[in-house]
Amino acid sequence: MSAPASSPAARPLAGIRVVDLTSVVVGPACTLRLADFGAEVIKVEPPAGDVLRSLGGPSPGGRHAGSYLHLNRGKQALGLDLKAPAARAVLERLVASSDVVVANMRPEALARLGLDADGLRDRYPRLVHCTITGFGPGGPYRGRPAYDSVVQGVSGIAGLAERRDGRPLYVPLLLADHVTGEIAASAILAALLARERTGLGATLEVPMHETMAAFVLQEHLGPRSFDPPLGPAGDARVLNPDNRPLATADGWISLTANTDAQVHAFLRAVGRPELIDDPRLRTVADRFRHVDLWFRVRAEALASRTSADWLAVFAAADVPAMPCHTLETLERDPHLAAVGLIGTDEHPTEGRVRTIRPTILQDGAPAPVGRPAPPPGFDTRTVLRDLGLGEAECDALIASGAAFEPGTDTG
Amino acid sequence: MSAPASSPAARPLAGIRVVDLTSVVVGPACTLRLADFGAEVIKVEPPAGDVLRSLGGPSPGGRHAGSYLHLNRGKQALGLDLKAPAARAVLERLVASSDVVVANMRPEALARLGLDADGLRDRYPRLVHCTITGFGPGGPYRGRPAYDSVVQGVSGIAGLAERRDGRPLYVPLLLADHVTGEIAASAILAALLARERTGLGATLEVPMHETMAAFVLQEHLGPRSFDPPLGPAGDARVLNPDNRPLATADGWISLTANTDAQVHAFLRAVGRPELIDDPRLRTVADRFRHVDLWFRVRAEALASRTSADWLAVFAAADVPAMPCHTLETLERDPHLAAVGLIGTDEHPTEGRVRTIRPTILQDGAPAPVGRPAPPPGFDTRTVLRDLGLGEAECDALIASGAAFEPGTDTG
Repeated sequence: MSAPASSPAARPLAGIRVVDLTSVVVGPACTLRLADFGAEVIKVEPPAGDVLRSLGGPSPGGRHAGSYLHLNRGKQALGLDLKAPAARAVLERLVASSDVVVANMRPEALARLGLDADGLRDRYPRLVHCTITGFGPGGPYRGRPAYDSVVQGVSGIAGLAERRDGRPLYVPLLLADHVTGEIAASAILAALLARERTGLGATLEVPMHETMAAFVLQEHLGPRSFDPPLGPAGDARVLNPDNRPLATADGWISLTANTDAQVHAFLRAVGRPELIDDPRLRTVADRFRHVDLWFRVRAEALASRTSADWLAVFAAADVPAMPCHTLETLERDPHLAAVGLIGTDEHPTEGRVRTIRPTILQDGAPAPVGRPAPPPGFDTRTVLRDLGLGEAECDALIASGAAFEPGTDTG
Repeated sequence: MSAPASSPAARPLAGIRVVDLTSVVVGPACTLRLADFGAEVIKVEPPAGDVLRSLGGPSPGGRHAGSYLHLNRGKQALGLDLKAPAARAVLERLVASSDVVVANMRPEALARLGLDADGLRDRYPRLVHCTITGFGPGGPYRGRPAYDSVVQGVSGIAGLAERRDGRPLYVPLLLADHVTGEIAASAILAALLARERTGLGATLEVPMHETMAAFVLQEHLGPRSFDPPLGPAGDARVLNPDNRPLATADGWISLTANTDAQVHAFLRAVGRPELIDDPRLRTVADRFRHVDLWFRVRAEALASRTSADWLAVFAAADVPAMPCHTLETLERDPHLAAVGLIGTDEHPTEGRVRTIRPTILQDGAPAPVGRPAPPPGFDTRTVLRDLGLGEAECDALIASGAAFEPGTDTG
């Protein structure tokens, strides 16, 4: 039943071509997922290049920030200046030979380029066309600009911290971008599957605000899911101020005890066996009602010993507990080291770079790590040739600035 | 090009049957995505029922917490006590007629039930078998219990807050569960697509720790992505202590200004035009280097006027800015109200309940909201009949306790 990591079975999107008009994070996270599944992702960049190339942080050559590299591995870089009609003609040829178009421009910008779904799906009914927007149609925010933090604010993510900690805080991840991108990848995959049956593509839109608000409300609408409401919104356990890593003598660990068996094992391990029969802590429902007490008991229990000591105790007692890693210790996590999550590769311009492999396993093995994200325009000539253009046509496109290669870009 | 919401095109997984052996959040989030795409999801529950039914908060009847309802709509509830051989025989018949099996039990528990991939894929080579685990094979944490907060700790999510705010904090969402579930749905969809070509299913595993660590590292490995490293890990902008909602005279708003045009418009709007030519704030790269200064300017700029005032100013200036919602104001967000994100439905035992509709749009419309998550065992007889069992067989299974319906369960 096992197959090598590079078997066709581990590349389920082999033969699927994706025109990637996205930039920054939400779109690239979507097309990264498709690339990891084996799709041929052709990323179209303007002369200035994806802003994340520099916005994402330093790199030796200045245009391959770490986050850019990790979100764009396994993709080809086609350099086109879509302001030039000749570049738009190239793009039309590319779309005609493709299965999927993904964009995260605002709807009007896409329409100006003639790349909105209406026109393209009329000409290419098998095409799956997916736009990722800030705000869907039919509401007052339609067309408004959206960034991750703006969406975290308006979708209620930042406000969850206000309830718990007294002031709103963003999640220190580009969470709305990253999650919406993953969900857009699902939408595209489902549409490709339906196309096998119907022969027809799809016109998809994934709005970030609605998607992240649903993500928040699914977990936190809670008692207000009923009519009449049974209480205020918000999962009282998740939003409890003591729902946080537990302080030990030398740091923090992460511990959860939900079942009665886990809670009893925890109370015995921390020397509070008398609480096992406390009627406020006896069952799941009791602890839910007395969550303040239960979390306070937890929070104060571990001050006397080190994290390593406690982790050994809880591992033996089958109480779920783990180190609480910083970015520095995360890289050295023994499990991640053993499974080879972080690897290395050679980048054509940035020297040796570290890679983060796909984490989905098929027959026990991850898909191969795609090649490093290339410089802007790195694959321009390869893609143009593949579309049937001759060398003279390629030269003319590049000389005119409609297309560019590394060294000819003006970014 | 437009189609009604209930058209077959909007149900891309119509005809796909999923055996859902999952509970709590990570697995149900995965199968919710599949159900929203139109798959027939049959959730198999033991007599005690999914623990989230009560752990997720109050409900009128005590077994349909809000988060349970929202993560399990559109699924059927099959009540089986898998300790009984007759129940395992029913499950085998169900698997034989299904396309997908999803589980989030620990590997050894799944093997004990004979539901691990090795056995099932030998008998049903077209089956897509997906397990969601805490920790993948080949590392020392394999088989250890995992809950969302434990994974948030070990994958570095909680530690990001430690860098920013001085102490580790969980994201106040079941983030590791919810995100890993979405990614598992993608893996299943890709495998179903490959099956159309190869005729073969797949054996998939999505480990939470590796998946969330990759999520963190893609964004934050940053300067340590290079050899030699260009600096410490961590996106300096995202992890800046002033990267948070901006205080106004009466609350907070969420605002991002990344491009030069947005930054200039912001500085003019807040009465600091002299900073437009400050060499520390002139370009994206300048502001990245001087992110402390730039975020401090931002943080202190809005104290003089109300949130509503500022939102009007920034909307006019095309600076991305939005309300920073609490759970209370999120429900009343005018955009979400206009697009109908929250609806209502009648639950068979809980009365009127509020629903959160799918947010992916196809041809401009969302898929229909699946029917409310039913009580444990609600569809037992329907599923058994569909598998070809006669009424006498159903009665015997239920009388023996191998299967149960509402009222016959012991949970």
